[in-house]
Amino acid sequence: MPLLAPALAATCAPPVMEARRWLAGASFPPERPLINVSQAAPVDPPPLALREAMAEAALSRPEAHLYGPVLGNPELRAELATATAAHYGGTVGAEQVAITQGCNQAFCAAIATLAAPGDEVILPTPWYFNHAMWLQMNGIRAVPLPCGAGLLPDPEAAAALIGPRTRAIVLVTPNNPSGAEYPGGLVETFHALARAHDIALILDETYRDFDSRTGPPHELFRDPDWHRDVIHLYSFSKAFRLTGHRVGAMIAGTRRMAEVEKYLDCVSISASQMGQIGALWGLRNLAPWVAGEREEILSRRQRMVEGLAALDGWDVMGCGAYFAYVRHASTTPSPDLCRRLVHEAGILMLPGTMFRPDGGTDEMRIAFANIDAAGIDDLFTRLRAFAL
Amino acid sequence: MPLLAPALAATCAPPVMEARRWLAGASFPPERPLINVSQAAPVDPPPLALREAMAEAALSRPEAHLYGPVLGNPELRAELATATAAHYGGTVGAEQVAITQGCNQAFCAAIATLAAPGDEVILPTPWYFNHAMWLQMNGIRAVPLPCGAGLLPDPEAAAALIGPRTRAIVLVTPNNPSGAEYPGGLVETFHALARAHDIALILDETYRDFDSRTGPPHELFRDPDWHRDVIHLYSFSKAFRLTGHRVGAMIAGTRRMAEVEKYLDCVSISASQMGQIGALWGLRNLAPWVAGEREEILSRRQRMVEGLAALDGWDVMGCGAYFAYVRHASTTPSPDLCRRLVHEAGILMLPGTMFRPDGGTDEMRIAFANIDAAGIDDLFTRLRAFAL
Repeated sequence: MPLLAPALAATCAPPVMEARRWLAGASFPPERPLINVSQAAPVDPPPLALREAMAEAALSRPEAHLYGPVLGNPELRAELATATAAHYGGTVGAEQVAITQGCNQAFCAAIATLAAPGDEVILPTPWYFNHAMWLQMNGIRAVPLPCGAGLLPDPEAAAALIGPRTRAIVLVTPNNPSGAEYPGGLVETFHALARAHDIALILDETYRDFDSRTGPPHELFRDPDWHRDVIHLYSFSKAFRLTGHRVGAMIAGTRRMAEVEKYLDCVSISASQMGQIGALWGLRNLAPWVAGEREEILSRRQRMVEGLAALDGWDVMGCGAYFAYVRHASTTPSPDLCRRLVHEAGILMLPGTMFRPDGGTDEMRIAFANIDAAGIDDLFTRLRAFAL
Repeated sequence: MPLLAPALAATCAPPVMEARRWLAGASFPPERPLINVSQAAPVDPPPLALREAMAEAALSRPEAHLYGPVLGNPELRAELATATAAHYGGTVGAEQVAITQGCNQAFCAAIATLAAPGDEVILPTPWYFNHAMWLQMNGIRAVPLPCGAGLLPDPEAAAALIGPRTRAIVLVTPNNPSGAEYPGGLVETFHALARAHDIALILDETYRDFDSRTGPPHELFRDPDWHRDVIHLYSFSKAFRLTGHRVGAMIAGTRRMAEVEKYLDCVSISASQMGQIGALWGLRNLAPWVAGEREEILSRRQRMVEGLAALDGWDVMGCGAYFAYVRHASTTPSPDLCRRLVHEAGILMLPGTMFRPDGGTDEMRIAFANIDAAGIDDLFTRLRAFAL
């Protein structure tokens, strides 16, 4: 055995990679191709005009290939600050924005500025597994906050978990994996709780462009002191289909930004220029297109809700953004059921056990946004024929 | 003051960003533009054929925009494995290669697999500042190993520094910041030392394509057990001028790769597809072009050595790869001298203090590869006129 750091060695393997390995040895004939609803990943490239803008940059803009500033290109930081202030109200400055190599890295950077080994961070469960993995491999305790009705976290239950080592509460809304859209008042109550205990509220809104509600989902940025304790995370990957370019963002106070700059200097130097060029072009040109994408995702969501309601043995626990989070009636634990679904139904989904420190054996996450209406219909045809 | 993690807060600000801030308030008239030799950064884009390949991919290959596997695209992993085995001899498999978002991230991942807070890692000084920063912000002690003659590290001195918490020795060759090319025998002696103590040897060869020596620089990969303790780092940024695409690599044993996959899943999900496409195209097509680039850099190096030999008050300590590391005769400490050089000579270089835990006040790093022969001549004209 080579020399290995214990905390990393004790951390689970990447769930999406593990699930891909379940495909080994399975066959997917042309008349029944794999339905992959495991990862929240657009399967189509960005719109042609965006691809043309990127191709043009590759050919004609030398800076598309060269180092940029650690915290991101000034134009993109300014554009996101403006877009954020316009969406949520309140004041956000370009100097309060960092561009990261994807939103996962924004979370890593946020935690790096806040917590040391032995500290604690509260995560509602079911949780986004990369959040829990990152905490564990860094020796920080992920304190689970089990969600109740509607898969919403309870501020009073959270308050009871706050101790002297607590550094942050993390909320993901719309939620991965549950799809739950947190009411604005709930987010604001959590912010008040964080402030009262002098800890941070990390708010991951990767999926905000697909929220079924119109208008700002909360009023955090209207608090003139939001920068004291709010750390906001965003991703350009989903809105503009730029997953392969790894470009996300963090919004936080400038004092914290100085710490983020140190961290990103070591782990990334800067985000991909091509990703930043694409994100900026998207912010400036793709709002109407994203609105259409949102309508499409919401119609898929509706189809999922209706399909699940009509399906014996499967119950919806949450459905929104890219995800349906469901309970199944099988006595087979969900990881084993997932493997059977691959081989017997040609469907790859993730078991609930990947989203909880324990339990989840009767739960599944279905990343339905990856498949269109016909794909959703096909999914239900296969699930109806599948013996739980 | 917001809540901040102490180890990160105690880490210095990014040196290259700090140096950029020295430019504020300085003026660079057209007849005397800034000579920026602060960062090892190509100033020209990749060759046109590579840019065309990337533009074509942006337009026509959906996968250029979508998620890829955490450890990198299989074709690129295989191509780098083949190229590495061809260059060094020995056996390297695709499954022993990880593609990272730049070589800094490969170092971060390597350390994550090896060391926990309280552990120690030995770094020859002058060191590459991002290595020291990353260790410090993670609570790992960077143990300095002062280099002697020719800025080469001494294995016996290193042996004396190895203790129960030591996890790795890091060698950078050709070296950043000193330019020193480590003899193959020296690298192999360090490997034997690491093996004898059951610790890792991290070997960063970011600048290997610009080594003045021909043939393999060491025989580590000819050891059939290299994967037990060698962790090799490489960057596509310098060879193919892809700094803005953030694409680097680690080569290590497969057991360690499983740990790297966990780490990268959290901090990056995958490297930029466009960067990987560019790197693969470069490996397959640009070897003759890179050979020409190497000749050019070596001629710049020769010009630097001759210029410094003829310059009063400046002595070469090391010169190779992208860097000259020099000693100046001024009584002004190097950080202050750097600021004066910006304002009085229009030259931005980095002070030796950025490359050591202490000392370095009479040292400078000059990243000469950024400037052509005329630029080097201009650099010396200005340095001759500059009052130390």
